[in-house]
Amino acid sequence: MKRVERPPILLTGFEPFGGDALNPSQEIVRALDGEIIGGHRIVGAVLPVAFASAPPLLDELIEHHRPVLVLALGLAGGRGELSFERVAVNLIDARIPDNDGAQPIDAAVIDGAPPAYFSTLPLKAIVADLRARSIPAGLSLSAGSFVCNAVFFGLAHRLATHAPRVRGGFVHVPWLPEQAARHPGQPSMAQAIMIDGIRAALACAIAVRDDLCESGGTIA
Amino acid sequence: MKRVERPPILLTGFEPFGGDALNPSQEIVRALDGEIIGGHRIVGAVLPVAFASAPPLLDELIEHHRPVLVLALGLAGGRGELSFERVAVNLIDARIPDNDGAQPIDAAVIDGAPPAYFSTLPLKAIVADLRARSIPAGLSLSAGSFVCNAVFFGLAHRLATHAPRVRGGFVHVPWLPEQAARHPGQPSMAQAIMIDGIRAALACAIAVRDDLCESGGTIA
Amino acid sequence: MKRVERPPILLTGFEPFGGDALNPSQEIVRALDGEIIGGHRIVGAVLPVAFASAPPLLDELIEHHRPVLVLALGLAGGRGELSFERVAVNLIDARIPDNDGAQPIDAAVIDGAPPAYFSTLPLKAIVADLRARSIPAGLSLSAGSFVCNAVFFGLAHRLATHAPRVRGGFVHVPWLPEQAARHPGQPSMAQAIMIDGIRAALACAIAVRDDLCESGGTIA
Amino acid sequence: MKRVERPPILLTGFEPFGGDALNPSQEIVRALDGEIIGGHRIVGAVLPVAFASAPPLLDELIEHHRPVLVLALGLAGGRGELSFERVAVNLIDARIPDNDGAQPIDAAVIDGAPPAYFSTLPLKAIVADLRARSIPAGLSLSAGSFVCNAVFFGLAHRLATHAPRVRGGFVHVPWLPEQAARHPGQPSMAQAIMIDGIRAALACAIAVRDDLCESGGTIA
Repeated sequence: MKRVERPPILLTGFEPFGGDALNPSQEIVRALDGEIIGGHRIVGAVLPVAFASAPPLLDELIEHHRPVLVLALGLAGGRGELSFERVAVNLIDARIPDNDGAQPIDAAVIDGAPPAYFSTLPLKAIVADLRARSIPAGLSLSAGSFVCNAVFFGLAHRLATHAPRVRGGFVHVPWLPEQAARHPGQPSMAQAIMIDGIRAALACAIAVRDDLCESGGTIA
Repeated sequence: MKRVERPPILLTGFEPFGGDALNPSQEIVRALDGEIIGGHRIVGAVLPVAFASAPPLLDELIEHHRPVLVLALGLAGGRGELSFERVAVNLIDARIPDNDGAQPIDAAVIDGAPPAYFSTLPLKAIVADLRARSIPAGLSLSAGSFVCNAVFFGLAHRLATHAPRVRGGFVHVPWLPEQAARHPGQPSMAQAIMIDGIRAALACAIAVRDDLCESGGTIA
Repeated sequence: MKRVERPPILLTGFEPFGGDALNPSQEIVRALDGEIIGGHRIVGAVLPVAFASAPPLLDELIEHHRPVLVLALGLAGGRGELSFERVAVNLIDARIPDNDGAQPIDAAVIDGAPPAYFSTLPLKAIVADLRARSIPAGLSLSAGSFVCNAVFFGLAHRLATHAPRVRGGFVHVPWLPEQAARHPGQPSMAQAIMIDGIRAALACAIAVRDDLCESGGTIA
Repeated sequence: MKRVERPPILLTGFEPFGGDALNPSQEIVRALDGEIIGGHRIVGAVLPVAFASAPPLLDELIEHHRPVLVLALGLAGGRGELSFERVAVNLIDARIPDNDGAQPIDAAVIDGAPPAYFSTLPLKAIVADLRARSIPAGLSLSAGSFVCNAVFFGLAHRLATHAPRVRGGFVHVPWLPEQAARHPGQPSMAQAIMIDGIRAALACAIAVRDDLCESGGTIA
C-alpha cells in the first residue's frame, strides 16, 4: 500500500551573479535540500539570475511539486542579518544587467498584476524566534527592484492566483565571510548560521499554523 | 634534564561591559588558551574593563610570562570584520563609565609617555593572509579612546620600555551573532571564524620573522 | 469679468514629532506657500503626525482646493538627500506612537484598498533635473510604515479613486543642520537647498507634461 | 607712525583631487581670506594635494606670515559634519596617488619625528559652540593616512619645533551639495554653513584664551 507523503517545502536560491563566484542562497539550498521539517521534505532548487527565465521556472517548480510552503532566498550584499521581506512590488528597475544581459528599466514584473503583494509568512513570529535562537534577523520593507524582487513578486502572484492556501515569502541573506573578505568593511554571516536560520524559519512557518512557533519550544 | 620551553604567546580579552552578558574577546581567549602556535604555547588572560586596573594587570602578566608576542583583543560593536589596529594614542576620553564606574575625560593613558605607538605586528601580512583564508579582516587607524585603546597603549609602552624585542598589537572584533540578534541591523561574526582568524594572525605574527607568512603555505 | 485661475498645487508637510522642536517639511511648506509655479499657485498645508487625522485632513484639502498636483513631504532623519518615494504600501506598523499616542501594529492604512500605489510623478526626470541643479536627490523604494507612508498611501488612494488625472507623490527630506547638530554624525541639508529642490521638483512635475523638464532649460 | 598689526590667522585648504572639479576646503578658504577675526586678519592659502610639496609650502607660509593660529582644512567625502581632528599620526599610507602621482606606502611623514601630535585647539569648546550655533560638528580620532593627515602632522611638528606657542589644528569637511549630487546617497553640507562653522571655530580658538568661547556670547 502506497504511503501518502506530506507535500514538500519548496526552497529556492540563486546562482552567483555580478562577478561573484558563489551565492550564499545557493549554498543554503544545497545544504537543506532533502531535510524533513515538520514532516515535510525540503525540495531545493537554484534559479537563474534572469528576469525572463527565473519566474517561469519557479512556476513550473510549484506546479510540479505542489508544495505546502515556498521560501525563496537571495543575496543582499551589505546587509548584516537575515532580512525577511514584507512586500514584493510589481516593478523592475535594474541597475546592472542580469545573467542573460537583460536590464529592464521601469517595467512591470507582470503586466496587469496588482502593484504589490505582502508576504504570507508569519514574519514577526519568525524573526522573534530567530533572535531568541541567537540568529541575527530582521524585517525589511523593500526587496529592491532587481531579480530578487521579481522572483518574490512572481511567486506571490502565482500563489495568489493558483494556490491561495500556500504560504510564500522571500529572505535576503548577507555575504558569506569569504565574500566579505574581498569587500573590506562589509558585514557577513557564516554559512552555518544562515542554514540554522533558514531551517528555523521554515519550521516556524510550518508550525505557526498550530501556534507552536516558539524558540526552545516543541519545534523539532 | 629540564626541557627548555619556548616563551609563550600572551593573548588577552576583556570581560563583558556596557550591559552585555558576554564579550567575544573573552570567548576567543578561552578557546585558544593552551594551544601551541609555532612551538609557542598561548597563555590566555581576561582583563577587567577598567582604566585603573587593566593596564597594571597586563604589565604583571608580561612580567610573569615573558611572552614572545602579545596580542590584546577587544569588542568593537558595529564593525563587521577583524579590525587590526595600527596605532594606540595616549588619550583617554570615555563616553560611558568603565566597569568600576570611572569615566576619565581628556586624560593621558600614561603621563609623560609618548603621544602614540604604532603596532609592531606585521599587520598587512596578517590581513592579506586572513583574507586569503576567507576571513573578513581589515586595518584600522583608531582604537578609540576607551579602555581598549588604553590597554593597547599601555601594552605598547610596556613593551617599548621593558621588552623592545617583543611584538605587540590589538585587534577589535565584531559582535557575536547572539549579540547582534539583540541589536537589529548590526553586523556580527561567528565565534569559530573569529577564533580561526586570531589563530592565523598569531601564526602569521610568529612566522613572519622567517618570511613564512603566506596563507596556504607552511604555517602550521 | 472674472479671471479663471489655474488650479493650485497642494504641498503638505508635517508638524514636529518624536521630541524634535521643528520639522523641515513644515519649514519648506511655509517657505513655498503662495509661490506660483508654471502658473499654478502653491497652497501649503501642515498635517498632524497622526494616523487617525492626517489622511482625512488631506482628503479635505484635496476636495476643497482641487489641485492639479499634490506633493507631500516628510522627515526621514538619517538620509542625506531629497528622497523621492516610488511606492506607498497599504501597511501601518509603528515603532513609536504618533503625536496622538496611537501606535497601530500590522494594520492596513485603508481596509479593502490595494496593497500599494506607485507615485505618479515623473520621478526619474525630477531626480536627474535636481542633480543637474547640484541638489542631492535620489529614488527610494520604501517610505516606511509610519505616518509618512500612511499619508502617501492615503493620498495615492484618494487620487486614484476620486481624481485619477491628478499627479501625486511623496518626498522624504533630511534633518536640518540645526537638528543634526544635536544628532552627532548624522547627515543634514540646508533649508535653502531643500526649498530649491522642492520648487524645482514641482516645476518639473508640472512641466513634464509638455516635455519641458530639463535643468537649465525653460523651466521658470 | 607705523601701526602695529596683530599677527594673522593662517587658514589653508586643498585644491581638488581624485577626479573632483572642486574642493570645499578651497572654497571656504577663498571666502574667508581677508576677514578679521578677533582683530586678526585671515590669510588664506590653497595647498597642492601632494605629499612632497604641501608640507614645505605650509612651512614657508608659517615662516612668512608668523600667524597666531593655523587651521588646515581638507575634504572627507562621506562624513556629514565638520569633523575636528584630535590627532595627527606620523604615517603615510596612500590608497590612491596624490596629484603628483606619488603613492607612498607605510612611510613616515617626517623621519625621526614623534609618532603623533594632538591638536592644540580647544576642540571640545569649538564643537560645543558650533552645535549651539546649529552647525553640525564633531570630534574625530583619525585624519586618515593620506595628504590631509600628512599636512596636519607636518603643521603640528612645525609648530612644536619652531613656534610652540602657536595653536594649530585640522578640520575635515563634507562634500558640497553639488558634489553629493553626483554621489547618490552621500551626505553633504552647504558652503555657507561650512563657512559659518569655520569662522566660528576660528573665533572660538582665538577667544578661548580669554575664556570667552561661548555661543551667543561676546564673540564678534
